[in-house]
Amino acid sequence: MSDELLEYYQKTRTISESICKTLSVDVLESQPIEFTSPPKWHLGHTSWFFEEFILRPYFKNYKPIDDFYQFAFNSYYKSQGEHCPRKERGQILRPTFSKVMEYRRFVDNHIFELLFNSENNDVKKNIILGLHHEQQHQELLLMDIKYILSKCFLNEVYQNKKSFFKSETFAHEYLCMEGGLFEIGANSKNKFYFDNEAPEFKYFQYPYLLATRPISNREYLAFINDGGYSNPLLWKSDGWDYIHSSKDFAPLYWEKKEGVWFEYTLNGYFPLELDAPVCHINYYEADAFAEWSGARLPTEFELELCYKSKYFSGPTYGFYESEKLHPIIKKTTNCFFGLTGNLWEWTNSAYSPYPGYQRPKGAFGEYNQKFMVNQIVLRGGSIVTPQSHFRPTYRNFFYPSQKWAFTGLRLAKDIK
Amino acid sequence: MSDELLEYYQKTRTISESICKTLSVDVLESQPIEFTSPPKWHLGHTSWFFEEFILRPYFKNYKPIDDFYQFAFNSYYKSQGEHCPRKERGQILRPTFSKVMEYRRFVDNHIFELLFNSENNDVKKNIILGLHHEQQHQELLLMDIKYILSKCFLNEVYQNKKSFFKSETFAHEYLCMEGGLFEIGANSKNKFYFDNEAPEFKYFQYPYLLATRPISNREYLAFINDGGYSNPLLWKSDGWDYIHSSKDFAPLYWEKKEGVWFEYTLNGYFPLELDAPVCHINYYEADAFAEWSGARLPTEFELELCYKSKYFSGPTYGFYESEKLHPIIKKTTNCFFGLTGNLWEWTNSAYSPYPGYQRPKGAFGEYNQKFMVNQIVLRGGSIVTPQSHFRPTYRNFFYPSQKWAFTGLRLAKDIK
Amino acid sequence: MSDELLEYYQKTRTISESICKTLSVDVLESQPIEFTSPPKWHLGHTSWFFEEFILRPYFKNYKPIDDFYQFAFNSYYKSQGEHCPRKERGQILRPTFSKVMEYRRFVDNHIFELLFNSENNDVKKNIILGLHHEQQHQELLLMDIKYILSKCFLNEVYQNKKSFFKSETFAHEYLCMEGGLFEIGANSKNKFYFDNEAPEFKYFQYPYLLATRPISNREYLAFINDGGYSNPLLWKSDGWDYIHSSKDFAPLYWEKKEGVWFEYTLNGYFPLELDAPVCHINYYEADAFAEWSGARLPTEFELELCYKSKYFSGPTYGFYESEKLHPIIKKTTNCFFGLTGNLWEWTNSAYSPYPGYQRPKGAFGEYNQKFMVNQIVLRGGSIVTPQSHFRPTYRNFFYPSQKWAFTGLRLAKDIK
Amino acid sequence: MSDELLEYYQKTRTISESICKTLSVDVLESQPIEFTSPPKWHLGHTSWFFEEFILRPYFKNYKPIDDFYQFAFNSYYKSQGEHCPRKERGQILRPTFSKVMEYRRFVDNHIFELLFNSENNDVKKNIILGLHHEQQHQELLLMDIKYILSKCFLNEVYQNKKSFFKSETFAHEYLCMEGGLFEIGANSKNKFYFDNEAPEFKYFQYPYLLATRPISNREYLAFINDGGYSNPLLWKSDGWDYIHSSKDFAPLYWEKKEGVWFEYTLNGYFPLELDAPVCHINYYEADAFAEWSGARLPTEFELELCYKSKYFSGPTYGFYESEKLHPIIKKTTNCFFGLTGNLWEWTNSAYSPYPGYQRPKGAFGEYNQKFMVNQIVLRGGSIVTPQSHFRPTYRNFFYPSQKWAFTGLRLAKDIK
Repeated sequence: MSDELLEYYQKTRTISESICKTLSVDVLESQPIEFTSPPKWHLGHTSWFFEEFILRPYFKNYKPIDDFYQFAFNSYYKSQGEHCPRKERGQILRPTFSKVMEYRRFVDNHIFELLFNSENNDVKKNIILGLHHEQQHQELLLMDIKYILSKCFLNEVYQNKKSFFKSETFAHEYLCMEGGLFEIGANSKNKFYFDNEAPEFKYFQYPYLLATRPISNREYLAFINDGGYSNPLLWKSDGWDYIHSSKDFAPLYWEKKEGVWFEYTLNGYFPLELDAPVCHINYYEADAFAEWSGARLPTEFELELCYKSKYFSGPTYGFYESEKLHPIIKKTTNCFFGLTGNLWEWTNSAYSPYPGYQRPKGAFGEYNQKFMVNQIVLRGGSIVTPQSHFRPTYRNFFYPSQKWAFTGLRLAKDIK
Repeated sequence: MSDELLEYYQKTRTISESICKTLSVDVLESQPIEFTSPPKWHLGHTSWFFEEFILRPYFKNYKPIDDFYQFAFNSYYKSQGEHCPRKERGQILRPTFSKVMEYRRFVDNHIFELLFNSENNDVKKNIILGLHHEQQHQELLLMDIKYILSKCFLNEVYQNKKSFFKSETFAHEYLCMEGGLFEIGANSKNKFYFDNEAPEFKYFQYPYLLATRPISNREYLAFINDGGYSNPLLWKSDGWDYIHSSKDFAPLYWEKKEGVWFEYTLNGYFPLELDAPVCHINYYEADAFAEWSGARLPTEFELELCYKSKYFSGPTYGFYESEKLHPIIKKTTNCFFGLTGNLWEWTNSAYSPYPGYQRPKGAFGEYNQKFMVNQIVLRGGSIVTPQSHFRPTYRNFFYPSQKWAFTGLRLAKDIK
Repeated sequence: MSDELLEYYQKTRTISESICKTLSVDVLESQPIEFTSPPKWHLGHTSWFFEEFILRPYFKNYKPIDDFYQFAFNSYYKSQGEHCPRKERGQILRPTFSKVMEYRRFVDNHIFELLFNSENNDVKKNIILGLHHEQQHQELLLMDIKYILSKCFLNEVYQNKKSFFKSETFAHEYLCMEGGLFEIGANSKNKFYFDNEAPEFKYFQYPYLLATRPISNREYLAFINDGGYSNPLLWKSDGWDYIHSSKDFAPLYWEKKEGVWFEYTLNGYFPLELDAPVCHINYYEADAFAEWSGARLPTEFELELCYKSKYFSGPTYGFYESEKLHPIIKKTTNCFFGLTGNLWEWTNSAYSPYPGYQRPKGAFGEYNQKFMVNQIVLRGGSIVTPQSHFRPTYRNFFYPSQKWAFTGLRLAKDIK
Repeated sequence: MSDELLEYYQKTRTISESICKTLSVDVLESQPIEFTSPPKWHLGHTSWFFEEFILRPYFKNYKPIDDFYQFAFNSYYKSQGEHCPRKERGQILRPTFSKVMEYRRFVDNHIFELLFNSENNDVKKNIILGLHHEQQHQELLLMDIKYILSKCFLNEVYQNKKSFFKSETFAHEYLCMEGGLFEIGANSKNKFYFDNEAPEFKYFQYPYLLATRPISNREYLAFINDGGYSNPLLWKSDGWDYIHSSKDFAPLYWEKKEGVWFEYTLNGYFPLELDAPVCHINYYEADAFAEWSGARLPTEFELELCYKSKYFSGPTYGFYESEKLHPIIKKTTNCFFGLTGNLWEWTNSAYSPYPGYQRPKGAFGEYNQKFMVNQIVLRGGSIVTPQSHFRPTYRNFFYPSQKWAFTGLRLAKDIK
């Protein structure tokens, strides 16, 4: 089997662990709220994925290191038997962290052996899927670590890279994008894509205006100071109810102290940087801001067409290349700044299947399809997203109230 | 002003009242659950709509009969001041029912006077909107009355028209629909449409198969008996969680007694009629059934294109024409049976704005737009829907867990 | 059978109905919150009590008017079969109010017939219990009607007797009560008592100080204005959590408008009368006030001993004698003002069985015993309590967070 | 200052740590449910108690090791400033466990220094209170550790002492206890007591019967098998509602597997030992069992009088003497078996202040008094209770639904 795959495997597995290497055991075990998972669990679950979908079916006479892991580290695959309820992941005290690391080595060694001895194409395909899966969890790890550290009462710092942090001031401008009948989605020329990115299909797009950069903290503050959170006419009905029942009137990680706004980042707790893009807002907030601006959120197709356009020459950031782990605004060669690699951008598209979508057979049918209701698509990719996930067709998705991902917004407008 | 409008006004207002005419005061006041409203409240609210949007702005020196009604009968228009919280509508004991009827006459008389004296085009437009609004509440009245009567412990009968009830047996077949670049949505040729039906826009549709009739109770029972509710692989993740937290394992109004399924209808409580279309299911159930069938739900566009196709010559039922108030399956001249006028059909389309959608200025901006998240579009129209609402472009919408509307499903398939 | 009993029966049944006679049907059916019941339901339930415990067992060949009533009007007697869940009492639309009145006449006629033809002592005893039960519901009726009217958005007035309302100013003083070994509870010399008042038992009481009048609105306002609700050290831990989770920072029916406190009463909505006793507070509030005052709540035994002492010559108010339906403070011949007949006074005694308590056999074992946990005893009797319930041994009980009864407090102190 | 106090201090502090010495870091940090605390937190909180109430007020120029600990390890003392909400104790990731151990040493060293240099009597009194407080937390530690280990999916064993486990069979008998006017509560002859045990007061007790041993698993199983959990007439109303809403139909830690009952203990997971006393039941269950038995629960006074009687010569177990950490029934020289040192016994007494009770001044007023509502007294002391807490006047208290303490029951009866 290919050296390239082996190298990809080793590199990916190593990155997950290096993300956790500075964390103490208490952080590794912590689950302060249902939607996060303990970092330890991510390290176990990503190994379970290889065990469950590659070693158990394809490794001859495979003997698991511990049968309990099948329950403990199954996230939500009902086809694979009982799984630990999401909110109880923090109660999985056994295996301990060092046992999880043993589990990772155990799985790795079996995967290596399998790679050397097997030319089965499904094995290779599933390993590649498993690596992309693990990369998604690398982003989740950084999201969850940030949330955990922020909630342990001491504004714990994940790393000390504050120096990387400095945005430039850009005017807020729109570029006119042309319309027509376009192809949306991934096709066989893509090296890799998830099932929810396919099939490629024809879509009629009207000409539209798209902002050349995301909205900044300065602009979002203007929205707040203009009473944005207390004007119901700007909000979707569910959004209005949500912010009032949750008393949630600012981006996550923002805090006002004696009249000054501060923001918690993985680099520590700092006064808000006004030129940086606003981050950690939910769909309701993004949508209300757009309404207030007299603009709208783009559709997921409008963003995809922009990535595929001549105006965009590729991503700039992402956590392989950058160590800052916080979005900034900085000059680039692209007409559209920060379109990928900076933060996820909320769209106005519900997460639905594409025309002709086929749910994968077997357990992988549970990977994406069963979440195709009640969620909203985000496009782009953030500062904590693995670089290789920056592709024009990638669809991220969250519930409209969620904001612990690195999420911001970019405005669009119709051409009348 | 036109006699036609006057006649439409009088007819519409009369129908709302005649729906309630057999109800005792306790039913008129009842709100057993937050999502229903007391029938009395619907009668007040539909009058408030005329008062608020026509009499207050356009009737010179208008003196309201009671200022409290502005609070009591405002549904959700934040632009119009404080409103009674939805779940407390049942606590509006004043005005009593007879006072509400006085209010209706008071509003009617002022509207008549305005119609005679004014040629203002906005007045006319708002009256027409108010009448369509009242027609929507006629359907809500029948939905809510059914729910109220079903919950008062005695299977109260709304009317006695059981004789109208008799479905015929049809084979379940698919017709092939052609693809291409089509126009979706309403345009200026439409006599009336809501803002969410516009603007007309180009949409590329792939060829598809659409079932010629909705799913029957017999078929839905087969799904139940095959363990449909206990197989997680058929369900969206949220749907699986919903049915388990709510212990909701059958259509609304179904009850199993000593091995036999019964169904509560507005005509009383009867053994389930197997050939009738399944009714009162939510999106999750419709979607799980489709999954179980190896098919899928159609998109809202696929249904609209079918209504606009040569295979469909118009609606057959609806509560002006039919007194049975319960969906049936019966021979028609349409290739597609019961496509409108029988029950609302769940689609796989999230309720989102169309490309180029413009939210109306002012209070009417709250009519539809603020609900464009978390809800699912239904198409068709039911046995309790006013006839004039059966138009190809009409978009109904509910949350995916709701099922007290007259909702069923029709299957679609891709052509591979 | 005795004319006296017949007269008592007729008078009692009439009073329940006369309490409701000015109410419109919507009020009679209303249940805005789980802990209240629709007035109609009280009228049905008190008749059910006679039917269930007298007519069904003792009236030969008794044929109920409607078997459904056995379910609908059973409050909580599990021994008597299924009952309507408390929170769904407002959904009992059938029988209508007029049917309930027919039910009352039907039950009355059967009771009369039984009284004329039977000398069974159990019949007589159960009728007397049924009448005391109905009298308890007369107070509940007035409590519930007040709550319902207050929540229907319009400060509906139950009656117009504002003129009766005028308190006098009294100094707040303590009288010294002697100690010793006393008898507590009811004995066979009592004409009637509930099982929870027995048996009489010996109790050693230390000398104590008891306030000669209840706490006034003026004093309670001082507590509020002194930050009583924001000082955790005054509150029981559960009380502090309760007021903060419920945001409940004043007596029920109090409202502050533009700096002035108003109070809703059955006579309408008025500025707070400062010399009237504070009413509609819960145990947590009474206890916190006592703490703030450097005093304590009395035990139920301390109040009982006071009623039985030379310092007290009998009740003064109660709704047979007074039409004001709101507590006042006025000169009386008793040393202890308003000790009964004015408002219920919170004690510091948990509601527990007396030493040697025997739960009645059969269904009446459910009357009181199963509530002997988590509740607090109140003593005295209020302005809406039937006069004959003012006896020294009567024990009322509510959960410590409840306050829709007419509840106030009187301070006590230890003698050091 | 006395060597005795120093020795008591050192011994007590050491025991808390030795209870935790076999636990891995993940267990030390775990809080699977609000009512438990992470073991690490107990170790910190017991040190905070000494710091807050002794070092800060009495140690001249005391410099805390970390000001954050004042927030983190304050349990509920509102008088001492803001405290970490109970349910968020598991989120206190900093200080780590080793930092908590440093904190313990830091506090210890300062206490030693203070002890050598001060003759202040309040210092001595507060240290003694702090040690009794720490001993209470030793029991909480073992309760919480048991709960945590039971919830980590693997029936983790705390220790391996199964061999200690063996009950003997005893007949269930009653002894007649005499009545009279007795003294209840602690007086100045007691070496130590908590404020809620005082003052001593006169109480008239009627003669009663008290069972010579607690109820066994065999007897509790008979209650279950007789349908005890499905007969509402045995339950208090709140108890019936509680078991049905929580679906809690057996003692905590019991599990039925293929028809056989198992019990989780700190020594592992074993088939239920039938002659052992039933443990981990709540008040509702204890009370329903008593009802089913035709008996009742004793009052707290009846148990206290028994401890003080000639029939009882002292405790037998408790975790200093025993390593088994699970209650048993074994021959003793006492007439009343297992009356203390085995398990806590539910009484029928609400947790209320004694006549003449004085809440301590200052912060210690929060120690016990603010919990004197809604809770039930337990008497005795369990296998995980420090030996010195076995005194006749000790009052433990929990909410009637709680059962993670080592709780059982002993029956009593009236003499008619």
